[in-house]
Amino acid sequence: MKRIVVLGSTGSIGRQTLDVARALPDRFRVVGLAAGANLDLFRQQVDEFRPRMTNAAALDGADGQTDLEAMVADPDVDLVMVATTGRVGLAPTLAALRAGKEVALSNKEVIIMAGELVMRAARESGAAVLPVDSEPSAIWQCIRGEDLPVQRLIITASGGPFRTRDPRELASVTPAQALKHPTWVMGRKITIDSSTLMNKGFEVIESRWLFDVPMERIEVVVHPQSVIHSMVEFADGSVKAQMGPPDMRLPIQYAMAYPERLHNPAIPKYDPLRYPALTFEALDLERYPCFALAMHAGKAGGACPSVLSAADEEAVRLFLDGRIAFTDIHRIVAGVLDAYQPSNGASVEDILAADDWARREAARVAAAL
Amino acid sequence: MKRIVVLGSTGSIGRQTLDVARALPDRFRVVGLAAGANLDLFRQQVDEFRPRMTNAAALDGADGQTDLEAMVADPDVDLVMVATTGRVGLAPTLAALRAGKEVALSNKEVIIMAGELVMRAARESGAAVLPVDSEPSAIWQCIRGEDLPVQRLIITASGGPFRTRDPRELASVTPAQALKHPTWVMGRKITIDSSTLMNKGFEVIESRWLFDVPMERIEVVVHPQSVIHSMVEFADGSVKAQMGPPDMRLPIQYAMAYPERLHNPAIPKYDPLRYPALTFEALDLERYPCFALAMHAGKAGGACPSVLSAADEEAVRLFLDGRIAFTDIHRIVAGVLDAYQPSNGASVEDILAADDWARREAARVAAAL
Repeated sequence: MKRIVVLGSTGSIGRQTLDVARALPDRFRVVGLAAGANLDLFRQQVDEFRPRMTNAAALDGADGQTDLEAMVADPDVDLVMVATTGRVGLAPTLAALRAGKEVALSNKEVIIMAGELVMRAARESGAAVLPVDSEPSAIWQCIRGEDLPVQRLIITASGGPFRTRDPRELASVTPAQALKHPTWVMGRKITIDSSTLMNKGFEVIESRWLFDVPMERIEVVVHPQSVIHSMVEFADGSVKAQMGPPDMRLPIQYAMAYPERLHNPAIPKYDPLRYPALTFEALDLERYPCFALAMHAGKAGGACPSVLSAADEEAVRLFLDGRIAFTDIHRIVAGVLDAYQPSNGASVEDILAADDWARREAARVAAAL
Repeated sequence: MKRIVVLGSTGSIGRQTLDVARALPDRFRVVGLAAGANLDLFRQQVDEFRPRMTNAAALDGADGQTDLEAMVADPDVDLVMVATTGRVGLAPTLAALRAGKEVALSNKEVIIMAGELVMRAARESGAAVLPVDSEPSAIWQCIRGEDLPVQRLIITASGGPFRTRDPRELASVTPAQALKHPTWVMGRKITIDSSTLMNKGFEVIESRWLFDVPMERIEVVVHPQSVIHSMVEFADGSVKAQMGPPDMRLPIQYAMAYPERLHNPAIPKYDPLRYPALTFEALDLERYPCFALAMHAGKAGGACPSVLSAADEEAVRLFLDGRIAFTDIHRIVAGVLDAYQPSNGASVEDILAADDWARREAARVAAAL
């Protein structure tokens, strides 16, 4: 029986985490829930799971407001699912790791912003950072029990909804079009990031930290069916892939139950005949300038990925609000990265300061477009 | 440094085993060689590797004739590569396992005939039977470090050279046509077995023993590119696959070096873009009656797989000699299996007696065609 806290329980990953907990009540007990939006759903979740800790004093049926950092460090907690989005997950992630808790990390901005700090906190307390995203989860599953270091990671990318669209038409793409992902159902921010492939750039940076593999040894290949979730090449040239229908409950459950694999009839099974062709294409960097920007920021290191992430978050918000064109997203991120003057510091404060600066700079670049 | 003996060193797998030993001289020392054919090549191998033990007294440069069973049990041996074909490998395999040696088993008739005896011998001495064939090797690589038991094995089959041939034309297929495998370069017997998919049936039986998975949980899917070498589904529904260009040196080296993965520049690397589509088709049992016969014999158990294997070996020999038609192979095997009266015994002697009977019966069935 693992006792879990879910931060961001009303978002897409949070809801699916609770689906898994509901399907396997003998294995998981929800002892803490936190959400920042959709209070009606949050109230239902609290009524159903009766967690001892919540972050909403107004809700009936729970003991009352608990600070997130105190909640994750509570002695009765085994695993923390960080399913928040944006920078809000950073402080509770570090608090959970410092308290020696397993952290299932879906909030990828946390590791983009502060990969070095997060992995150091994990090393120092002996706690584990467990991937939740399907691609890093695939890599994690493939290296299980393997002779390390690996030779190469091959991360797959669906290519998003605009893989075959004439690039000249991208300027007129609407938020509704960009929100229609061909294979995955996800939250709004990550769906836009998937259409620009910024998300794939984030996954390369994330994988570099999670698996301690230099970025030069991480490749991305377009695989429109999203059945092979990623591949790993080992020292002898052998390649392993992890596969399955596109459904987030599998990687979520894998992180929750690790190292066990639990039978859950709700998770759809892979049938090779339902996907008669698995195809691969080279990634077209001209079509996806956000991916190239992410590679640049990831290699630059320091607070650069934090600047990348914050500028992207602002640009995506402006796009979803109908205030900029789809093709302005990469222009804003590029403008912010160009204007950034790296400093030497890499503390949490330095990272948050770079994030603040990048958001202001993004607004300035957007206004000047 | 592993000290290895290679039985069947002049065959396809034996030669590639020596390729690996030659490429990695710091890791492998060849202390014994045995061959039953191609004495010119054998002499060259003995001259190059200078093994202390050989099975050919006539050869210069070696200490002289050594009995295979004594050779594999020698105290200076760590691993025995059994790369013979047919029943000749059975006795040395059992001798090596009883002496506690690692056995890399390429001679699949051994495990088809005597899977239960072989696995029991391994259990009793604590020795390991290591797969060499690409498909069982893929399964072995996928279950490495995993939470067992697995849910399902999915073995891939290229479909051989006649996957799309009009079934009415199969009767007129020549040995030369059947020896042209679309993806793998192998010995003659196994190439014919691959064209009838008898070989795939053997792999199902082999996998049942090697991985202790019931035959009902082993599926076969046609995958013409031979890039995904097999897949494993785990309890949670997650699937892992092992992939690579079709080249036997990788699974051979994996068995030789296990648990290490060694860099060997001679082994070709997988590039997803060189195989832009990986396709899957259902196995057509009517096109491949030998596969159905193998499933039947495997499920019947006892000495039935031994009868299957012996009848097939005789039928393939008759086909290669131009004495029967391609479509007579399955008729002969079916006729022998139909005539077989199972006995209760399952000792080595019982198995060899069933094998002897099946060969005589195959000749009788062939004469009556």
